[in-house]
Amino acid sequence: MSAASALVPGVQAPESLDVWVREAGERFERAAGEMLPTPDREPKRLHAAMRYAVLGGGKRVRPLLVYAAGEVTAADAEALDRAALAVEYVHAYSLVHDDLPCMDNDVLRRGKPTVHVAFDEATAMLAGDALQAEAFAVIADGALPASQTASLMRELAHAAGTQGMCGGQAIDLSVVGRQIAPAELERMHRMKTGALLKAAVLMGALSGQSALLTECTREALTHYGDAMGLAFQVVDDILDVEGSTADLGKTAGKDAAQSKPTYVSVLGLDAARALSLRLRAQALEAVAGLGPRAARLRELADLIVCRNH
Amino acid sequence: MSAASALVPGVQAPESLDVWVREAGERFERAAGEMLPTPDREPKRLHAAMRYAVLGGGKRVRPLLVYAAGEVTAADAEALDRAALAVEYVHAYSLVHDDLPCMDNDVLRRGKPTVHVAFDEATAMLAGDALQAEAFAVIADGALPASQTASLMRELAHAAGTQGMCGGQAIDLSVVGRQIAPAELERMHRMKTGALLKAAVLMGALSGQSALLTECTREALTHYGDAMGLAFQVVDDILDVEGSTADLGKTAGKDAAQSKPTYVSVLGLDAARALSLRLRAQALEAVAGLGPRAARLRELADLIVCRNH
Repeated sequence: MSAASALVPGVQAPESLDVWVREAGERFERAAGEMLPTPDREPKRLHAAMRYAVLGGGKRVRPLLVYAAGEVTAADAEALDRAALAVEYVHAYSLVHDDLPCMDNDVLRRGKPTVHVAFDEATAMLAGDALQAEAFAVIADGALPASQTASLMRELAHAAGTQGMCGGQAIDLSVVGRQIAPAELERMHRMKTGALLKAAVLMGALSGQSALLTECTREALTHYGDAMGLAFQVVDDILDVEGSTADLGKTAGKDAAQSKPTYVSVLGLDAARALSLRLRAQALEAVAGLGPRAARLRELADLIVCRNH
Repeated sequence: MSAASALVPGVQAPESLDVWVREAGERFERAAGEMLPTPDREPKRLHAAMRYAVLGGGKRVRPLLVYAAGEVTAADAEALDRAALAVEYVHAYSLVHDDLPCMDNDVLRRGKPTVHVAFDEATAMLAGDALQAEAFAVIADGALPASQTASLMRELAHAAGTQGMCGGQAIDLSVVGRQIAPAELERMHRMKTGALLKAAVLMGALSGQSALLTECTREALTHYGDAMGLAFQVVDDILDVEGSTADLGKTAGKDAAQSKPTYVSVLGLDAARALSLRLRAQALEAVAGLGPRAARLRELADLIVCRNH
């Protein structure tokens, strides 16, 4: 994400954050380039498709949350890279599968042809499947104590499963073209996008010093993750209406075109904006007691709510 | 698997094994029924599709290998259930995705309509995705010490990834309709089916008492798993030619119809049979030093090579 716009008036991320965001993004990109299987090794086409799906694009919101939360528990950089890769692999695989003809049938993602367009449908499906496996492998192969490794994998598995991302997508399929109540929309989004964003926060913190992750700190981060997970989706829905395809790097207005309920269609634009600000306030309040260790998380809350893509 | 036939002359599994196989299968089915998310809970259709994919069918070769290998390290029954579920979930998800129109486009599996036929393509894809996540969750939620939990997940992640099952399937896609050498066929099958079967053996053993899993025992089990993983596929290829659709519960002769290279097409029927016997001998030799603890593994080697479906 680059410099924040003022999509939501009155909230502006600090400019100093830009440098950190750029460096964290570069750090992630370098780690992913090194850790993803290379296309000079068999099966080459599968590896190429996996790299295409992950590298060279995306806002990297989940890795940024991992890195920021890692500051709360003074996490080691390599451990954070692995957690960031794992979360982003799961996110990337979900996009690859979501774009397939049997799901959203989309041809543009991050300003590039989607994986099944650039490769083929079978390769896209396998690349998604392999990225999910790789997400668990990249954590399993890390150097953290087994208790932390197991906790990280547990967090990821639940965030990716039927009460998290996959479950949310299944509900998403079932609500196309029908009216739903705000509570149902919230539930769907808390699962579909919120669960993995919250996992990013917790996994960043779980990668650090266990002594710094008290029950109280963990609870604060859970509340922060809950609020930001939902805020991200509310802003996404606002951008789907207000943003341009060029800014977004994906087809704008596609939710409306597919008759999918969104925060804008269910609440209206003004109420959606107000909700995003309330969620930001909740997130900031949740981590207020964590002091300077949570400075990046506070700044990210602003960035996520102010982004223009 | 029911009573063994004499597809490969001279090899016959002991009848006493039948009772154990039936009981282990029932145990697995009960555990899966209890642990899989129920369709009375949202997202109901997704849960129903996941249960449809896993329950009420299949030879359960991987769970049987988990339970048999667990005897080597005196593993606790509940821990073995979880390892068996995890491996079978990964296997089941691969079948669901493999049957989709963009892959093999098959309509019959385990004698029933495939998941995308019984539900729809999007639900089938999501059910597969969710089963993979659930595989890791079911281990992560177990009661084993973290060191064993982390080892189990590591084994599973690698067996499912690009140097295991997904990688093998990618190679499978790339060899359709062309001549390949026996070494390439072997490599593909060691990845596509062998890796997960070997993981089943190792995960069964890893679920038990660590003190009983010496480096030497682990090596023996790895060799056993390598040999049986390949033997299973060789027999599969023989059955694809010799078996009937009714016995197999899936479309017979489909590899030939899809111009996929098999052990029969590459080596011929007699050489394929001879290879399956050599692999059985290798498997038996590998665990010869493990004594009575490995009795079930020895019996399973015979059952896998003698099966008629």
